[in-house]
Amino acid sequence: MLSWQCHYSINKGAAFLGLGTDSVRVVKADERGKMIPEDLERQISLAEAEGSVPFLVSATSGTTVLGAFDPLDAIADVCQRHGMWFHVDAAWGGSVLLSQTHKHLLDGIQRADSVAWNPHKLLAAGLQCSALLLRDTSNLLKRCHGFQASYLFQQDKFYDVTLDTGDKVVQCGRRVDCLKLWLMWKAQGGQGLERRIDQAFALTRYLVEEIKTREGFELVMEPEFVNVCFWFVPPSLRGKQERPDYKERLSQVAPMLKERMVKEGSMMIGYQPHGPRANFFRVIVANPTLTRADMDFLLNELERLGQDL
Amino acid sequence: MLSWQCHYSINKGAAFLGLGTDSVRVVKADERGKMIPEDLERQISLAEAEGSVPFLVSATSGTTVLGAFDPLDAIADVCQRHGMWFHVDAAWGGSVLLSQTHKHLLDGIQRADSVAWNPHKLLAAGLQCSALLLRDTSNLLKRCHGFQASYLFQQDKFYDVTLDTGDKVVQCGRRVDCLKLWLMWKAQGGQGLERRIDQAFALTRYLVEEIKTREGFELVMEPEFVNVCFWFVPPSLRGKQERPDYKERLSQVAPMLKERMVKEGSMMIGYQPHGPRANFFRVIVANPTLTRADMDFLLNELERLGQDL
Repeated sequence: MLSWQCHYSINKGAAFLGLGTDSVRVVKADERGKMIPEDLERQISLAEAEGSVPFLVSATSGTTVLGAFDPLDAIADVCQRHGMWFHVDAAWGGSVLLSQTHKHLLDGIQRADSVAWNPHKLLAAGLQCSALLLRDTSNLLKRCHGFQASYLFQQDKFYDVTLDTGDKVVQCGRRVDCLKLWLMWKAQGGQGLERRIDQAFALTRYLVEEIKTREGFELVMEPEFVNVCFWFVPPSLRGKQERPDYKERLSQVAPMLKERMVKEGSMMIGYQPHGPRANFFRVIVANPTLTRADMDFLLNELERLGQDL
Repeated sequence: MLSWQCHYSINKGAAFLGLGTDSVRVVKADERGKMIPEDLERQISLAEAEGSVPFLVSATSGTTVLGAFDPLDAIADVCQRHGMWFHVDAAWGGSVLLSQTHKHLLDGIQRADSVAWNPHKLLAAGLQCSALLLRDTSNLLKRCHGFQASYLFQQDKFYDVTLDTGDKVVQCGRRVDCLKLWLMWKAQGGQGLERRIDQAFALTRYLVEEIKTREGFELVMEPEFVNVCFWFVPPSLRGKQERPDYKERLSQVAPMLKERMVKEGSMMIGYQPHGPRANFFRVIVANPTLTRADMDFLLNELERLGQDL
């Protein structure tokens, strides 16, 4: 059970683990991209009526495109009522918990059975640095993945072998990815990391207000996170919203501008269509070295590259 | 279908992918740790008689403990006869293909449907660097793992989007691990890498001959690869092979010496029991900076640490 706005990794995981993608049911999201708990309840009833046994809900804290945060408390209520595992994909938005000002976006995450969090995203730890946090205290991962390969995980060591965690992960040989997070945390401190998050939100606010004042820029919606989604409407399309080919022509703008910025070497900004919406740009304001001058450059550069369209 | 000497990752994968470990059948290995093709044939018949449909054989080129190379050509014949997928786990031994002198150990690998190879092992590329090589030319990985997430893998780009390989792998955000191999290969050349392999084999030979000349050292077997497996028999146990508690006491030697070397900070050598064999040391001669002096030090240090046992 997951919203259609969730990351494609959930579907991929279902296929990979042998559950099959038919086992994945999509829950409706509202116009801001948040899962609708009433529809979740409805999908569970439908699945049960078909004889299925729904067992897991994957909510998202920070969707990839819109940066939406699902209403975790309401979803936790549904999970509790139906005895379902409550997973939160906070890969993108989990770092917001470090900010006293913004952590309310994740209210209810403390009720999750499992949380996925990628410090390599918003916190800018080096790729890859992913954490899976579990409520479980029974060594679940070891019970799932452990194979007690005696040629690798000797039990007759001189120290407490429960410190050897290698057997509980999926991989065998792997990097010590958590060290990057630990070092960064020691170097920056909790306050330093909080400042990064708060600055990202503040800079996002600056960019959004700039977009509102400039002709030819149109927000997809007011962001609640650091994903700024907007269209650049070039001069030839301004005020032509009523033309039948408007959406089709608008769709071609982002790919064209992307080609130009890549060939110039000046910027890299992602774009995508989304549901019924034509291709729009998605600026992620995450890099802690970004300044207002970078935001100004970004908008000026789009104007410059798109002035003849 | 795999030999009992194979890496535990095969069992783990079967569990993880939802096939279940009961689907994994173990084939007998000979006293050198090589899969016995006649027993593979027998296990396939047994499985078919039970109504199962065997579909994959996983052979190993370079087992973890003994460094054994399965007879790939004979196994390929069996796979061909039964229409089974022929996978070679060459994670450890695959790099030997770079040596004209030693690549015969992998004769038959050219008939594999898939090969796993870890340049981060014998070639010492930085962790992690793993390759999965496929005979398939139909973009199988994309067909298995691709989800065409339109918000990530746009099709309306200005270049050939088949160059975007992200959708065919299991992960989404991941490091460009292949770059390490490419850079190393450019820097060292094929001949440089070949020299590393050949040196590792030569230094292994030196260590083995030294072990044979020293009192208290006993080879588990003549190695065919760079895994040197041996017992250190301390003074108090020499010539006591007939005592009923010999094996039990010998088993305690490696853990005790391991504790001593770790606490001294002088060496790190793995040990393990293996089938009916008591704990023995396993030295892997892989690091290209190793010299004969290091081999001498290793044996001297074991003698020093174990002289009172």
